Amino acid sequence: MTSLRSALPLLLLLTLPALAADPLPSWNEGPSKQQIIDFVQAVTVEGSKDYVKPAERIAVFDNDGTLWTEQPAYFEVLFAFDEVKRLAPQHPEWKTTQPFQAVLEGDHQALAAAGMQGLLKIIGATHTGISTQAFIDNARHWLKQARHPKTGKPFDQMIYQPMLEMLDYLRSQQFKTYIVSGGDTAFMRAFAEEVYGIPPEQVIGSNFVTQFQLNGGQPQVLRTAKLAHNDDGPGKPESIDAVIGRRPILAFGNSDGDLQMLQWTAAGSGKRLMGLVHHTDAKREWAYDRNSQVGRLDKALDLAKANGWTVVDMAREWRRIYPFEPAVQAQVQ
Amino acid sequence: MTSLRSALPLLLLLTLPALAADPLPSWNEGPSKQQIIDFVQAVTVEGSKDYVKPAERIAVFDNDGTLWTEQPAYFEVLFAFDEVKRLAPQHPEWKTTQPFQAVLEGDHQALAAAGMQGLLKIIGATHTGISTQAFIDNARHWLKQARHPKTGKPFDQMIYQPMLEMLDYLRSQQFKTYIVSGGDTAFMRAFAEEVYGIPPEQVIGSNFVTQFQLNGGQPQVLRTAKLAHNDDGPGKPESIDAVIGRRPILAFGNSDGDLQMLQWTAAGSGKRLMGLVHHTDAKREWAYDRNSQVGRLDKALDLAKANGWTVVDMAREWRRIYPFEPAVQAQVQ
Repeated sequence: MTSLRSALPLLLLLTLPALAADPLPSWNEGPSKQQIIDFVQAVTVEGSKDYVKPAERIAVFDNDGTLWTEQPAYFEVLFAFDEVKRLAPQHPEWKTTQPFQAVLEGDHQALAAAGMQGLLKIIGATHTGISTQAFIDNARHWLKQARHPKTGKPFDQMIYQPMLEMLDYLRSQQFKTYIVSGGDTAFMRAFAEEVYGIPPEQVIGSNFVTQFQLNGGQPQVLRTAKLAHNDDGPGKPESIDAVIGRRPILAFGNSDGDLQMLQWTAAGSGKRLMGLVHHTDAKREWAYDRNSQVGRLDKALDLAKANGWTVVDMAREWRRIYPFEPAVQAQVQ
Repeated sequence: MTSLRSALPLLLLLTLPALAADPLPSWNEGPSKQQIIDFVQAVTVEGSKDYVKPAERIAVFDNDGTLWTEQPAYFEVLFAFDEVKRLAPQHPEWKTTQPFQAVLEGDHQALAAAGMQGLLKIIGATHTGISTQAFIDNARHWLKQARHPKTGKPFDQMIYQPMLEMLDYLRSQQFKTYIVSGGDTAFMRAFAEEVYGIPPEQVIGSNFVTQFQLNGGQPQVLRTAKLAHNDDGPGKPESIDAVIGRRPILAFGNSDGDLQMLQWTAAGSGKRLMGLVHHTDAKREWAYDRNSQVGRLDKALDLAKANGWTVVDMAREWRRIYPFEPAVQAQVQ
């Protein structure tokens, strides 16, 4: 007892800074930060009426527009365009075949005319017909070389510092953090572990039907051109049910594509947190919602307001957007 | 320092039994036990040339015939038959419609005549058209009431004590244990966490296409009759690639349906363990392999022998089969 007692002051010294540290330093004091911290405390304090066992602390996050930027276009689409250029020497016919010709010539009008069907052709040509591992290697190669047109930074640095802090905070409180997003699962796995600390088995996205094959005796998993699952809208609760098998207690998105995931999360019993990143910062990032082609936020914004869900006003509430920026006060207070 | 030194003998007393404890007490000393322990030690000792980071310690297990008994028929099929009987009052037409009539009348000949098509009709009628949660509730209700025809025990007690010990041992060494099995994912989730300590998000099986719906404003995930994935044979490495996104370093199965999962595991770089449970114990369990309808083990057995994979001789190597049995020496030594 004597030795324990004499060690107590030292123990307190070690513990106090950890208690005092702000888990969300890039968030201004405001409603969203308070709602997040209140929620986490409510479900993690043992004996609290809202207590949730660690195993059931499932938190799901959309990726595009929620964890990283999605402007001027989804980064995976920009990857596909760059892949068309890289692969063009092996496909001389692309010089005269739409929509590939449009990509090679930078012809935005022809590309727009090709529409969603054209985009799906480009995705198919760059995302399938190869093994999962080869596809991930391609994505990693691109992430090393390609630069964002506005900031000149690698795309996997265009991630939101406040959301990184939120992910870390949740994991420090024994939450299991998942990505549930419309992007290709393997594309996101190419960077999610290194960049977000989210391991491959906690990345859920859209995927293609695969085929196990023995290629000269060597087993491989080949990505076919057939879409297996579109992880958008209702596809999100469907994949959560299929892959996780538990209902999340926290869900964060930024667009109408996240609506059903938020509804599914909200409909569980007990305390839960539903949140939206609202892109309100035309200066430091982008400002868009109801009329945007990319990441349209309309119905989900109405529902959030009607139900008292957390809506993060990026311009007001985020002190910093990207990790490569210095920490400053947001311009609107 | 003085107090630490005086505490050392006590610390040693606390630690030694843990070190000395046999992690696999229901396994006789034999080749399989030694191979499992050697493998785990090789990949977990830091600085070893075979060391594997905890995050990459993925272990996958088939369920039917590997973690629990699959005789006299797959337990999920027995569940489906019992569900037909339970649901019959709501389906008066089943009295005169095959294959349901055969189930209701216990007509094995008519059931055999209905074949795989008949079985799929029974699976469809009992497994789909309801929400995932309702299906899991049905499975749990059945597990509480139904009894195995040979032992009279609940089906979820017909699990292999030696494999439970192996799962615990692996988890104590920071492995992540997964089920990758042909059974319905939600059916296995109904008991896997309680019985095996495997949480829902680490259960991978066959599944149906689901549909997110608002049912009177209440969100639900409905199981449709369309099969999304058959988690057997090549379907196993495909689902491992899709859901886990890492190649396992340990895989255990018991039939030719596990062949591709074992091949996929074996083809990775570094040390790995591939294993088969060989049903050799006609007295305490069942003895079957190359000529069995259920759990046929033929090609995989040849491949295991050719490649030096672990083959567990149940009769010789397992001291005990089920948790409800007393621990005894196996009858063949």
